[in-house]
Amino acid sequence: MAIRFGLLGAGRIGKVHAKAVTGDANARLVAVADAMPAAAQAIADQYGCDVRTIEAIESAKDIDAVVICTPTDTHADLIERFVKAGKAVFCEKPIDLSLARVKQCLEVVRAHKGTLMVGFNRRFDPHFRAVRAEIDKGTVGEVEMVVITSRDPGAPPVEYIKRSGGIFRDMTIHDFDMARFLLGEEITEVVATAAVLVDPAIGTAGDFDSVQVLLKTASGRQAMISNSRRATYGYDQRIEVHGAKGAVSAENQRPVSIEVATGAGYTRPPLHDFFMTRYTEAYAAEIATFIAALGGKGAAEPSGEDGLIALALADAAVKSVAEGRVVKLSEVM
Amino acid sequence: MAIRFGLLGAGRIGKVHAKAVTGDANARLVAVADAMPAAAQAIADQYGCDVRTIEAIESAKDIDAVVICTPTDTHADLIERFVKAGKAVFCEKPIDLSLARVKQCLEVVRAHKGTLMVGFNRRFDPHFRAVRAEIDKGTVGEVEMVVITSRDPGAPPVEYIKRSGGIFRDMTIHDFDMARFLLGEEITEVVATAAVLVDPAIGTAGDFDSVQVLLKTASGRQAMISNSRRATYGYDQRIEVHGAKGAVSAENQRPVSIEVATGAGYTRPPLHDFFMTRYTEAYAAEIATFIAALGGKGAAEPSGEDGLIALALADAAVKSVAEGRVVKLSEVM
Amino acid sequence: MAIRFGLLGAGRIGKVHAKAVTGDANARLVAVADAMPAAAQAIADQYGCDVRTIEAIESAKDIDAVVICTPTDTHADLIERFVKAGKAVFCEKPIDLSLARVKQCLEVVRAHKGTLMVGFNRRFDPHFRAVRAEIDKGTVGEVEMVVITSRDPGAPPVEYIKRSGGIFRDMTIHDFDMARFLLGEEITEVVATAAVLVDPAIGTAGDFDSVQVLLKTASGRQAMISNSRRATYGYDQRIEVHGAKGAVSAENQRPVSIEVATGAGYTRPPLHDFFMTRYTEAYAAEIATFIAALGGKGAAEPSGEDGLIALALADAAVKSVAEGRVVKLSEVM
Amino acid sequence: MAIRFGLLGAGRIGKVHAKAVTGDANARLVAVADAMPAAAQAIADQYGCDVRTIEAIESAKDIDAVVICTPTDTHADLIERFVKAGKAVFCEKPIDLSLARVKQCLEVVRAHKGTLMVGFNRRFDPHFRAVRAEIDKGTVGEVEMVVITSRDPGAPPVEYIKRSGGIFRDMTIHDFDMARFLLGEEITEVVATAAVLVDPAIGTAGDFDSVQVLLKTASGRQAMISNSRRATYGYDQRIEVHGAKGAVSAENQRPVSIEVATGAGYTRPPLHDFFMTRYTEAYAAEIATFIAALGGKGAAEPSGEDGLIALALADAAVKSVAEGRVVKLSEVM
Repeated sequence: MAIRFGLLGAGRIGKVHAKAVTGDANARLVAVADAMPAAAQAIADQYGCDVRTIEAIESAKDIDAVVICTPTDTHADLIERFVKAGKAVFCEKPIDLSLARVKQCLEVVRAHKGTLMVGFNRRFDPHFRAVRAEIDKGTVGEVEMVVITSRDPGAPPVEYIKRSGGIFRDMTIHDFDMARFLLGEEITEVVATAAVLVDPAIGTAGDFDSVQVLLKTASGRQAMISNSRRATYGYDQRIEVHGAKGAVSAENQRPVSIEVATGAGYTRPPLHDFFMTRYTEAYAAEIATFIAALGGKGAAEPSGEDGLIALALADAAVKSVAEGRVVKLSEVM
Repeated sequence: MAIRFGLLGAGRIGKVHAKAVTGDANARLVAVADAMPAAAQAIADQYGCDVRTIEAIESAKDIDAVVICTPTDTHADLIERFVKAGKAVFCEKPIDLSLARVKQCLEVVRAHKGTLMVGFNRRFDPHFRAVRAEIDKGTVGEVEMVVITSRDPGAPPVEYIKRSGGIFRDMTIHDFDMARFLLGEEITEVVATAAVLVDPAIGTAGDFDSVQVLLKTASGRQAMISNSRRATYGYDQRIEVHGAKGAVSAENQRPVSIEVATGAGYTRPPLHDFFMTRYTEAYAAEIATFIAALGGKGAAEPSGEDGLIALALADAAVKSVAEGRVVKLSEVM
Repeated sequence: MAIRFGLLGAGRIGKVHAKAVTGDANARLVAVADAMPAAAQAIADQYGCDVRTIEAIESAKDIDAVVICTPTDTHADLIERFVKAGKAVFCEKPIDLSLARVKQCLEVVRAHKGTLMVGFNRRFDPHFRAVRAEIDKGTVGEVEMVVITSRDPGAPPVEYIKRSGGIFRDMTIHDFDMARFLLGEEITEVVATAAVLVDPAIGTAGDFDSVQVLLKTASGRQAMISNSRRATYGYDQRIEVHGAKGAVSAENQRPVSIEVATGAGYTRPPLHDFFMTRYTEAYAAEIATFIAALGGKGAAEPSGEDGLIALALADAAVKSVAEGRVVKLSEVM
Repeated sequence: MAIRFGLLGAGRIGKVHAKAVTGDANARLVAVADAMPAAAQAIADQYGCDVRTIEAIESAKDIDAVVICTPTDTHADLIERFVKAGKAVFCEKPIDLSLARVKQCLEVVRAHKGTLMVGFNRRFDPHFRAVRAEIDKGTVGEVEMVVITSRDPGAPPVEYIKRSGGIFRDMTIHDFDMARFLLGEEITEVVATAAVLVDPAIGTAGDFDSVQVLLKTASGRQAMISNSRRATYGYDQRIEVHGAKGAVSAENQRPVSIEVATGAGYTRPPLHDFFMTRYTEAYAAEIATFIAALGGKGAAEPSGEDGLIALALADAAVKSVAEGRVVKLSEVM
């Protein structure tokens, strides 16, 4: 019996998830809702589903699960409403920019024994999953040091930055989750440095565009993260894991892998220039994981709790920069 | 107005094309035919189309084009029938194993001003296309030497080999087409060496499993091809083009691009182990090209003529090995 | 006129420098001194120079310059003695493990207008120099973020660790100098995390074996360093520089660059397993630079001051770990 | 007891061998001879050896071995003279451009039980040796197909071409020797294609600048060679060996291995632009091998016979192009 879906939000990422749901033999897209009727209608036309209001989806008998792709400030409310309505929920990250609000929301989920999966898509990238699989197989021995490089092709508009919660909560949060995914032990300490090097307007907006973070677990496992809002050479997304017995890494991805050789040297094309082309397979795989979990196969992870911890790490990084010191995660949780 | 398709053959490659057709906004899969009713029904169920006989598709008013994925020995007959019925035809390679039969078939196509595209899928691989694009941009200057490495993960069953027309017509034919795609000038001379190194049963069947070919054009451009029926490390598919101003190459592809480092060295995973996973994007792109061409955008290429020349090059290679000499293409055409 | 050299210390690194001096057309090795007469004699035999005492070299009329390769705790004294004796001095790093002692020594050098070059060999690695050359050419624009990975094949004996001054002063000091070499602006802030993951005996000795460091300059340029005392895959030495217009990196080096492909994947050999094979060219180039500078071509850099600052950064890292906070370089200088 | 050397020829390659001999603890350079006294004197000054005439070296009691680096047309005569004089001979390739003359010379060597090693330097490249070592270890199983790419950065002057014996005897001869080194079985058949694409003046001089060769052994092992006199991207020197159990390859070498990333892509520097920088280590290793062999360790290989067979393969290639057919080695030997 196929899982019947409602899609909340028909924007850029909503379209990606609509395609993933309709392409899965174990799922069916029943309805889509969006504040912009034309956007919802376009998806309805393409995939032959209904346009409905959020309220109608909430009360629908023919819908088992929803995918929330609405603006960030609506996430926590919608999670609570749909969990209360008995729907399984897949929600784009973050649950909320306020740790307190996230905790409150997760309590509602727990109280209603709801299913909540959070969209940290990078865990589903096949290359990063293969790195994790090597760790799980023991190839590298006990994990000791993780290095994450994560740089965007270009900075988003300052208007976006202002509502983003800041670079640690908006961008580094993916890397915090990736560090947890790879370290195999909870992070207890955070310290960060931060600067404005890309665009002074980002500084004026109270944010940074170039940051570094060190993480440490109780037993001494460590991770470091390098973030920039601008990389002329494309979307720079690499991870390395060094362990007692060896190391494993995932290199950058590019649309085509040719090499041109001339008197100027050997040149490969730039990297992907957009997160949606870089993580195409990851977006499809995370929805497939959610559908499989609802069908009883595997867990609906990353969970709301994973979303909470990643946000707490971001809060700790903000505090670390403000106070020029190592911050324990327990100080902010 | 979407192009309406009939699919002839519901086997492995038929399924691939069914997915490509249904995933294209400008096409619709109307019906499928197969000698095995269950195979046709499975595709009909998945994509909501009819199961019909070949005859019914031939006479159908609601079908504009067909994709032929039936056994090789039916290709030429079906091309003729469907061209006569006024349908555009996409046919898997080869048109036939006999050069005379192919010529006859192409005359029928011409007489009926039919549209025939032949499935040399590798021309549509994004990496190989990018190599060709660099040539077209003039990055490497005049093309001088092409090197094609093409090795299968493992030999097919000897029963397949016996019906295959031999390694030059079955396997190298792709590389002959690729050499033409890259050389930018017609090939006039062929010489080859051949041996049985992988499996003596292939030799008993009258075929070779390890061959090398040199090609030359009238102006002296040259190409060389290395083929083996077995590569333990996966599906080895590389091309290099050396020209007056530089070179361009396309490296092998693998499912995941991680690297594991231990005391034994730095190891990346083996290559794809199957042509359908290696050329997933190419299969989708060739059907998209056919659909676009039927809609008036671009050409339905590679053409039947391309199929004819590739087969003639294979015939020349067979003759070269038999006679231990350079064979002119004009001797076999 | 060739520069006439005395060599102080005929151990492992002394032999390397003896070869570099004798292989340079603008230099001549006149004498060697070592506490172990047999070691000095071996070098004398191989290169046809004298064995003398340190005192004899100090007062020699036929010696213009010395290379100091004696144990660390003799460096500062020997620098002072030979500068006073009017000899140009090349000294292996570090000048001393005590910042106060280094400052005192550099005052003596200044007072006698002496020439002192410090052996941070990695600045002379051709690959790292090429990275710096790209920065100087403006290829990457303003430098924004530097990432240095530096891992030893295996931990030294604990007896060595005990006398080493600790990992930051013994191992990371090279990376501090490299960060300065690449950042193009003085470092003002240091923060580090540290752990014992490789060998508990290192912890018992009061040291760490796995550390991470973040560095920051006044304008916000940043660097991060990952160090481990053990890498099963060899001597891991990489640098990356990210700037406003692009990035430049230097990959790891290995003795031979073959690749073996089997069903298990594609494997390249492990990295160099020893700093002296990894940095063979760098050792030769640093002595050539010293000889050239004495001949009036270029500067005798890195200078004593460079040695001082690298040590101060190490002291700041020690303090950062102890106090769990960002330490300003001005606090320790 | 060190082997005492005479050097015949003080040109470019003579200097390389002078350095190799003097740098070897088991050898001593006693004298150098050259038609240009200044060239001989420069080497004598640098390494402290005598300048003597060829005749004086021939009759010298204090010389055990000679290295012949004189013009090609003197090689065979000098080999005969020095073998008769009881000296061990290392001779740059080729022995002669005439197969008959080579055979005659080798008979003299045999008659006098002389030691003759021929300078196919590429066998001593550490990367190519490592490829061979993997074959010897059985990593790739039985060798089946070898692919050799060998392209010069630029064509030599036409005056050189005219005296060179043609591209097959001058350039491909190295690849013929490499194919033999890797195939593990004698080559029995040769076929080639050839063209003038780089410089019409080369064609006017009766030579080709772009050639392809196929080789085959009695059991069916095969090799292919791609040669061009011009590669804008540097000295392109690669080998691949495909076998029953896997493959092994050696990639190109470049002076520095950095990578620059910008909006235009990821660029590594061009390759070495000169055979002497590309094969620096190989030149040193071949002389070390000769010295070791004279000292009783290992064989003085490649032998005169190896030189003979490589030349015969070149002759067969010339014949193949002229006659448009596969030529058996037995036809020319």
